[in-house]
Amino acid sequence: MTILEITQKLLAAKKAKGLTFADLETMIGRDEVWISAVFYRQASASEDEASKIISALGLEPDIADELTAFPVKGSLDPVIPTDPLIYRFYEIMQVYGMPMKAVIHEKFGDGIMSAIDFSLDIEKEEDPKGDRVKVIMSGKFLPYKKW
Amino acid sequence: MTILEITQKLLAAKKAKGLTFADLETMIGRDEVWISAVFYRQASASEDEASKIISALGLEPDIADELTAFPVKGSLDPVIPTDPLIYRFYEIMQVYGMPMKAVIHEKFGDGIMSAIDFSLDIEKEEDPKGDRVKVIMSGKFLPYKKW
Amino acid sequence: MTILEITQKLLAAKKAKGLTFADLETMIGRDEVWISAVFYRQASASEDEASKIISALGLEPDIADELTAFPVKGSLDPVIPTDPLIYRFYEIMQVYGMPMKAVIHEKFGDGIMSAIDFSLDIEKEEDPKGDRVKVIMSGKFLPYKKW
Amino acid sequence: MTILEITQKLLAAKKAKGLTFADLETMIGRDEVWISAVFYRQASASEDEASKIISALGLEPDIADELTAFPVKGSLDPVIPTDPLIYRFYEIMQVYGMPMKAVIHEKFGDGIMSAIDFSLDIEKEEDPKGDRVKVIMSGKFLPYKKW
Amino acid sequence: MTILEITQKLLAAKKAKGLTFADLETMIGRDEVWISAVFYRQASASEDEASKIISALGLEPDIADELTAFPVKGSLDPVIPTDPLIYRFYEIMQVYGMPMKAVIHEKFGDGIMSAIDFSLDIEKEEDPKGDRVKVIMSGKFLPYKKW
Amino acid sequence: MTILEITQKLLAAKKAKGLTFADLETMIGRDEVWISAVFYRQASASEDEASKIISALGLEPDIADELTAFPVKGSLDPVIPTDPLIYRFYEIMQVYGMPMKAVIHEKFGDGIMSAIDFSLDIEKEEDPKGDRVKVIMSGKFLPYKKW
Amino acid sequence: MTILEITQKLLAAKKAKGLTFADLETMIGRDEVWISAVFYRQASASEDEASKIISALGLEPDIADELTAFPVKGSLDPVIPTDPLIYRFYEIMQVYGMPMKAVIHEKFGDGIMSAIDFSLDIEKEEDPKGDRVKVIMSGKFLPYKKW
Amino acid sequence: MTILEITQKLLAAKKAKGLTFADLETMIGRDEVWISAVFYRQASASEDEASKIISALGLEPDIADELTAFPVKGSLDPVIPTDPLIYRFYEIMQVYGMPMKAVIHEKFGDGIMSAIDFSLDIEKEEDPKGDRVKVIMSGKFLPYKKW
Amino acid sequence: MTILEITQKLLAAKKAKGLTFADLETMIGRDEVWISAVFYRQASASEDEASKIISALGLEPDIADELTAFPVKGSLDPVIPTDPLIYRFYEIMQVYGMPMKAVIHEKFGDGIMSAIDFSLDIEKEEDPKGDRVKVIMSGKFLPYKKW
Amino acid sequence: MTILEITQKLLAAKKAKGLTFADLETMIGRDEVWISAVFYRQASASEDEASKIISALGLEPDIADELTAFPVKGSLDPVIPTDPLIYRFYEIMQVYGMPMKAVIHEKFGDGIMSAIDFSLDIEKEEDPKGDRVKVIMSGKFLPYKKW
Repeated sequence: MTILEITQKLLAAKKAKGLTFADLETMIGRDEVWISAVFYRQASASEDEASKIISALGLEPDIADELTAFPVKGSLDPVIPTDPLIYRFYEIMQVYGMPMKAVIHEKFGDGIMSAIDFSLDIEKEEDPKGDRVKVIMSGKFLPYKKW
Repeated sequence: MTILEITQKLLAAKKAKGLTFADLETMIGRDEVWISAVFYRQASASEDEASKIISALGLEPDIADELTAFPVKGSLDPVIPTDPLIYRFYEIMQVYGMPMKAVIHEKFGDGIMSAIDFSLDIEKEEDPKGDRVKVIMSGKFLPYKKW
Repeated sequence: MTILEITQKLLAAKKAKGLTFADLETMIGRDEVWISAVFYRQASASEDEASKIISALGLEPDIADELTAFPVKGSLDPVIPTDPLIYRFYEIMQVYGMPMKAVIHEKFGDGIMSAIDFSLDIEKEEDPKGDRVKVIMSGKFLPYKKW
Repeated sequence: MTILEITQKLLAAKKAKGLTFADLETMIGRDEVWISAVFYRQASASEDEASKIISALGLEPDIADELTAFPVKGSLDPVIPTDPLIYRFYEIMQVYGMPMKAVIHEKFGDGIMSAIDFSLDIEKEEDPKGDRVKVIMSGKFLPYKKW
Repeated sequence: MTILEITQKLLAAKKAKGLTFADLETMIGRDEVWISAVFYRQASASEDEASKIISALGLEPDIADELTAFPVKGSLDPVIPTDPLIYRFYEIMQVYGMPMKAVIHEKFGDGIMSAIDFSLDIEKEEDPKGDRVKVIMSGKFLPYKKW
Repeated sequence: MTILEITQKLLAAKKAKGLTFADLETMIGRDEVWISAVFYRQASASEDEASKIISALGLEPDIADELTAFPVKGSLDPVIPTDPLIYRFYEIMQVYGMPMKAVIHEKFGDGIMSAIDFSLDIEKEEDPKGDRVKVIMSGKFLPYKKW
Repeated sequence: MTILEITQKLLAAKKAKGLTFADLETMIGRDEVWISAVFYRQASASEDEASKIISALGLEPDIADELTAFPVKGSLDPVIPTDPLIYRFYEIMQVYGMPMKAVIHEKFGDGIMSAIDFSLDIEKEEDPKGDRVKVIMSGKFLPYKKW
Repeated sequence: MTILEITQKLLAAKKAKGLTFADLETMIGRDEVWISAVFYRQASASEDEASKIISALGLEPDIADELTAFPVKGSLDPVIPTDPLIYRFYEIMQVYGMPMKAVIHEKFGDGIMSAIDFSLDIEKEEDPKGDRVKVIMSGKFLPYKKW
Repeated sequence: MTILEITQKLLAAKKAKGLTFADLETMIGRDEVWISAVFYRQASASEDEASKIISALGLEPDIADELTAFPVKGSLDPVIPTDPLIYRFYEIMQVYGMPMKAVIHEKFGDGIMSAIDFSLDIEKEEDPKGDRVKVIMSGKFLPYKKW
Repeated sequence: MTILEITQKLLAAKKAKGLTFADLETMIGRDEVWISAVFYRQASASEDEASKIISALGLEPDIADELTAFPVKGSLDPVIPTDPLIYRFYEIMQVYGMPMKAVIHEKFGDGIMSAIDFSLDIEKEEDPKGDRVKVIMSGKFLPYKKW
């Protein structure tokens, strides 16, 4: 199965069961964003996590294998995404990339925020002037090694 | 003055004064990331904010004008940034773009997180296994208008 | 079904019924451009709107589901479009982008015209020297938030 | 003088005089967007219009020549603009390009909206929920010639 | 049917009938280049022209519909063509683009040669030193509108 | 001197003398487009032609050398030009590239139209419905050699 | 049949027959590189050459037609090839392009080496320090025409 | 000094002395193409070769240092060259890349022609039908190592 | 079979047999990275190596042919890879490319490290602070030939 | 000072002193590749390291500041490097990227080799068949965090 086929199968089963990612978070014990990343094959599940996902969705066990594999990640097309929701993250990087670099270097020194030892949460902030999307990224600071 | 010259002048003055962005946050009453964005001319200060920044840095008043202008924003070069710190945000978008889209749509419906009615904070999380960079984005949800 | 297949199915049904987008505007109570955007899966219909569209076109109900989903938007290929009609909008952005930026900033301050809280109408202006296409865009002004 | 230098000279003079583009519209008898396009050297003035602009801005006459030349137009850099205000017009083309093509073809037949025999107005729509930017484009429909 | 399939079907029928584009010019009363553009779906035929083409090629009538549609035009892949014959036109634009711009502006003022109100003929010039390809383009001059 | 500087010097001298390219055609005995190509350093003059051009423009003899050199040709920037006048030639190649290829192959066999053994003329066709730009290209047909 | 299918069919037949391109050179009377170019549909065979190739490979006659057509040429993907053998030719152009231009202009004047009236041979030079690949290109010099 | 400045200085001195690259070949004992590559800083001279070049050109000794450095090589701009003479080598790679790969693999096995242990000669073949440019490349065959 | 199909068939057989690349290294007598390169068709096996691989995996003999062919190599898509593991090698080249060039030139003179006469090993270094990936590349130094 | 100016100043001083990077390794107590990375401003020195470098090179103390800053890293131009030495690392990634990914995942699980907690050594392996360049990379394995 291609990644696209796996994703569509999982999304269809989730819809048929009437489950949200938040429901899956409760059932599987992992964050909804991480579970969604497994759906899009950007994260790999352990065998145990894969069985739980499969069973929550009522799918046949043989698809579990697909969820534990380590696929090629990061496959937005084209390289500068055109979907408005995803593009805004590109724009944030364009507009706030240098300011963030300046502040992170000042607080931590020369290094980066890891995108691997990393988690990402999405919360809904209710607000009378219009609800807000809150995205919280937490990545380990990795200082440049000298040798 | 080009944007690059303005930025370099501000950074040099800040270094000469021995100030951090966090110090400026206290002195000016705006978040350090936003102030850094003004330094890189990705955000525009009011006249009052510009005077405060100029005075904190001990610069001549005539540069204040430059900080209230509305320059062309978003100017990383090349379009896929090569600086490792900034690239990680591109990678996060590549890897977690579709999962975030799925979760945001599920929580909010068809629309986007605004990158304009938006704030971004950076915090240092102390952690015995290595400190963590916490990036908190908060953007108004904008539902697609129908007409 | 892929987006392309959905679009072709809808366009074929519309042609078979001899309907124009203007007819659909009357039948469904939404603007013809917005309805066309639903056809190309750039806008999402509510369940009620989807049923009306399906029924107007004489299609089976199960395609309604496809019209309420939130697909990846913005998929012209290549990134600089080569179709002459669509390219002209790229050219307008190239030629009049900076002038529009200057005038909008002067009238509104630092911010943008929303492309989400946004509507777009197309009218035919009869003119003895040759009819004119009138495109009217209306987007909420979003001022940059400071924090 | 390069185009950039001309633009900066004109903008500085306009600022020094405290004039808006709307003021210039009144003084020169041309739309403010078109005048702004002359500032950015995307439109060419007649000798008469150039003198009026120069005189309104209090500049020396020899710059008038620069405003009547026909420079290379369309020079956003990079090809997909990163400035959020200008990018939204790229996004509109990406999202609504095909729907607009469908509606324009249905109303007019095979052809395009001219970007040359073309005008563009920007209006401010006051709205209690937030002011709106109204962009009105009017271009002659050009049907494909057969031969 | 995709555009590629339509083109291949038309070319195969033309070959089977032993017809040249010049023969079709005589039979249909349109220039051979325009007819070839219809084959590649870069130009749209009227219903009458479509029937004549279909009948000249001995094809079933239901393909006529495909020839009257308005497809997305301009689809060379990649954006800088690699086919040597087509590339030469890119090269001509690269080498002679600015000189042509200078001469056209001098003769006509600020504006463009239309590529819509446009015709293109190809003639064979016999020459003892080697035959020559003559390409004659004729496009309406469109002056920039002021407003 | 850079190519840009040479071009600007020549254009300024031509303007100061009040000469058109058509005037230069008469004075120098070469086509105006070819002379314009020398101005933009896309064509190389012989020493005799260079002296005639220099003398017609009233320039010092030492610039003649620059006109006989063989510079790097074809330097539009970006690779898909954004100037509307020049872009139309890109569009013609996109839309009519394959139809031209089909007709040229049919008339001449496998080969190309040379862009080197090549001439290009621009004529003004007066027309009550609007004057037309006529571009006539003539290139030697080069058949593919077999070996 | 697509070009890829034709190429694969020819290569499979050649392998099944145990023939080298050098064998085909002997049998068909054309150079092995040119024959290989026909296999990849970058060169067009005459009807006679096509029959000889078909018969040498033991293929059915109806594929001969495919070898006499004039396909779109030059289709390496991506535009800067990644295959190391082919890339070296790109590297040679990058490193020696300007030096070759300088020497060719000095020997021949302003013009180019034709890639159409052109042949290319590959020879194996035995060498105790390691055999060498010899590539001999011969193209007609085409001087720029003046007009 | 930048590479461009070095090249221009060398070319100017060569012109002033009235020397051809072929003359330099005789004086320095290296091939004219290699010497031209040193001029464009694509090849590095030994100290002895550098002195000979400097002395042949009548330049001051201190430029010799520049000719023995190892600069960044391969710097055509843009990545697909637009100069017609240089582009033809790109076209040859596009059209004959796969055929050459097939023949080289058949003659030598899996590996490449080195572009480092490599020489390139340019000869003028006189021909009554038009002189020909002969380019002879000789590169060591490098078989892929297994490990 | 396409390369993708071959790779998937080999990986599936390896998984079914429960073999690691390290196991295959022992069975076949070639390094695990090289064997993996054969799986992805970036390296070519001899007939003997191909039989050993096929037999170790329990596959039918006819696939052996596919492993001895010389396919087009280097096919990451897109050209700047987005998979985080592979991207890090691009980043290393971006960050350490010039420093490596400086050190290699200083140690060896003008030339390159061969990527053909080349081997690459991957080792696991156990480390209490977190295991390390060790990548050892060994390529023959190739000095630039002069001629 | 720009990065280019700093690099050139450091390289010139190193040349004037007749020092190699290996000499600097001994004098400063850091690896020669890391020191070279400081020269190209891809690594940041501590104040102590900066003084040692400055003093070893006999430069004025005020340049030390430049070596402790955290500049934008990774700035090869163009994005696919054309310098043959650096390109080989791109080629290695293209050819061996997927095989390395497969072997690293098998040995370590889902994660990456860090390019930050990373060192890179270059050694000269003497070999009678030609010396070899040995590049040893050592990066911490970072497993994907789940959350």
